[in-house]
Amino acid sequence: MEIREDQITHGIRERVATIVGSRGPIPLAAWSPAEGRGSQLILVGHGASGSKMEGYVVALARSLVRTHGCCVVAIDGPVHGERRSDGHTGSTLPFLEFAQRWSADESLTDDMVSDWRETLDAVLAAEWVDNDAEVGYWGLSMGTILGLPFVAAEPRVRAAVLGLMGAAGPTRERLVSDAASVTVPVLFLVQYDDELVAREDAITLFGLLGSSDKTMIMSPGAHGAVTAESFRRSAEFLADRLSQVVSGSY
Amino acid sequence: MEIREDQITHGIRERVATIVGSRGPIPLAAWSPAEGRGSQLILVGHGASGSKMEGYVVALARSLVRTHGCCVVAIDGPVHGERRSDGHTGSTLPFLEFAQRWSADESLTDDMVSDWRETLDAVLAAEWVDNDAEVGYWGLSMGTILGLPFVAAEPRVRAAVLGLMGAAGPTRERLVSDAASVTVPVLFLVQYDDELVAREDAITLFGLLGSSDKTMIMSPGAHGAVTAESFRRSAEFLADRLSQVVSGSY
Repeated sequence: MEIREDQITHGIRERVATIVGSRGPIPLAAWSPAEGRGSQLILVGHGASGSKMEGYVVALARSLVRTHGCCVVAIDGPVHGERRSDGHTGSTLPFLEFAQRWSADESLTDDMVSDWRETLDAVLAAEWVDNDAEVGYWGLSMGTILGLPFVAAEPRVRAAVLGLMGAAGPTRERLVSDAASVTVPVLFLVQYDDELVAREDAITLFGLLGSSDKTMIMSPGAHGAVTAESFRRSAEFLADRLSQVVSGSY
Repeated sequence: MEIREDQITHGIRERVATIVGSRGPIPLAAWSPAEGRGSQLILVGHGASGSKMEGYVVALARSLVRTHGCCVVAIDGPVHGERRSDGHTGSTLPFLEFAQRWSADESLTDDMVSDWRETLDAVLAAEWVDNDAEVGYWGLSMGTILGLPFVAAEPRVRAAVLGLMGAAGPTRERLVSDAASVTVPVLFLVQYDDELVAREDAITLFGLLGSSDKTMIMSPGAHGAVTAESFRRSAEFLADRLSQVVSGSY
C-alpha cells in the first residue's frame, strides 16, 4: 500500500492511499482516531455518481470515528473517483457509465468483491485497527449492488448496513442469490418515495436476506434524501452489533 | 378520578384508578417516578386480547419512567380488562369480541377517542406530570385502530408510535381519512411476517400519514413478535421528539 496523504484534520486522522491490487491500483481513503488504532473497522461503499471522498461518506466516516472510535475505509467504485483515467470529476457521467457497465460487464460484481477483499487484507496488515477489531460494511444503492455480494462472500464482515436497492436490475439474480447467503445482522434503509428503486423490490430483497437479525428503516423522501437521523442510526447499528460480536452475543 | 391503588414497586410509582367518564367508568393504570411528576406524558393503548396491565405495557411503561422520566398512562380498551362486566381474564374471548365490535359498532372508534380525551383531561388535572410536559401516544394493532383517530383528533398529542395495522378492516375508511390528519412525528412499526396485517396495507397506511417526520421500522417475525429493540427504539423516539417540542424544533 502506498500512503499518499496522512494528516490530522479536526482531530481525525485522514489517509489517502493506493493498494496494489491483483487487478490494478485500488484508490482508498481512511479515517481513524488521531491517536492509536480503530476499535472497529467499517468499510464504506459509496453510491453511483459519488466517490470515496463523497460528502456523505466523509461525514459518516468522521461520525463513526468521533462517536464510536472506528477506523473507516472507503474505496472508489468502478468508473468513479480516482478509478477514472480521464480525471472527470462530475457526477452524471460516472452514473451513466456505471449503469452501462452494470448491464454489460458480467465481472463487475466479482471484480469489486475481489477489490474489497484485497482492501480488507491490506488494511488489517497495515495495523490501522486493533487486533481484535470486528469488521462491518456500509453501502447503499451501488454500495449495495456491489457490496451485498461482498458481505455474502466475506466471513470477516460481521454486520452490514445496506439499502436503496431492490431485487432488480441487471444483476438481480446475483443479488437474490447472495442475499440468502448474508447471515450477519443487517440494517436495511428504504426511501418511501425512491424514484430509482421500486419499494416492492426493496422489500423483496430485504425479505430474502438470510439474517435472523435484520431491520428495515423506511423514511419518506427520494433516493438521495436519506436523513441525518438514518445515518446516525446506521452508525449506531454497526457499532452496536460489532461490539456484540466481541462480547459473544453473535 | 378514584385512586384505587397507589404504591411504589422497584422504584416506580404505580397507580390504578377509575375515571368518571361521560360514557361510564374508564379503568386506568399509571406509572411515574417514585418522587415528583413525570417530565413527559405517554398514553399507551394496548392491543386486542391484552389489557392496561398487559406484560409488554407494564414493561414499556417502566422503561419509559426509568430511562426517560415519563409518566405513562394506559386504559383498558373496549371489551378488555376491567371494562368487562363478566370478569373474564382470558385473551381469546376479548379478541373475538373486539373483532365483532369492530365490524358492528360504528361508534367504537369515536367512543375510544372520547375516552382518551377525558383520560388526558383527568391526568393533566391530577397534576401527575409537569405543567409543561408534552404528550405522546403509543399503540400498536388495536392500539392503532383506536389510537390513530385519537392522535388525529387531539392536538395535545405531539408524537406517536403506531403500527401493526394497515389500511384495512371494517374502519379502513376512517383510518385512511384520519391518517392524513396526523401531522406529528410518527414511528410506525411493521412486522415482515405479520399473519394478521398484510404488509402492503401497513405500508399504505404509513404512506398516508400526513406527518413530514415519519419513520417505518420493519422487522422479521409475526404480529406479536415485536422485538425488545423495537420497543426500546419506540421509547427513545417518543422521548426524543417530545423533548424537541419543548426546545421548539417542532
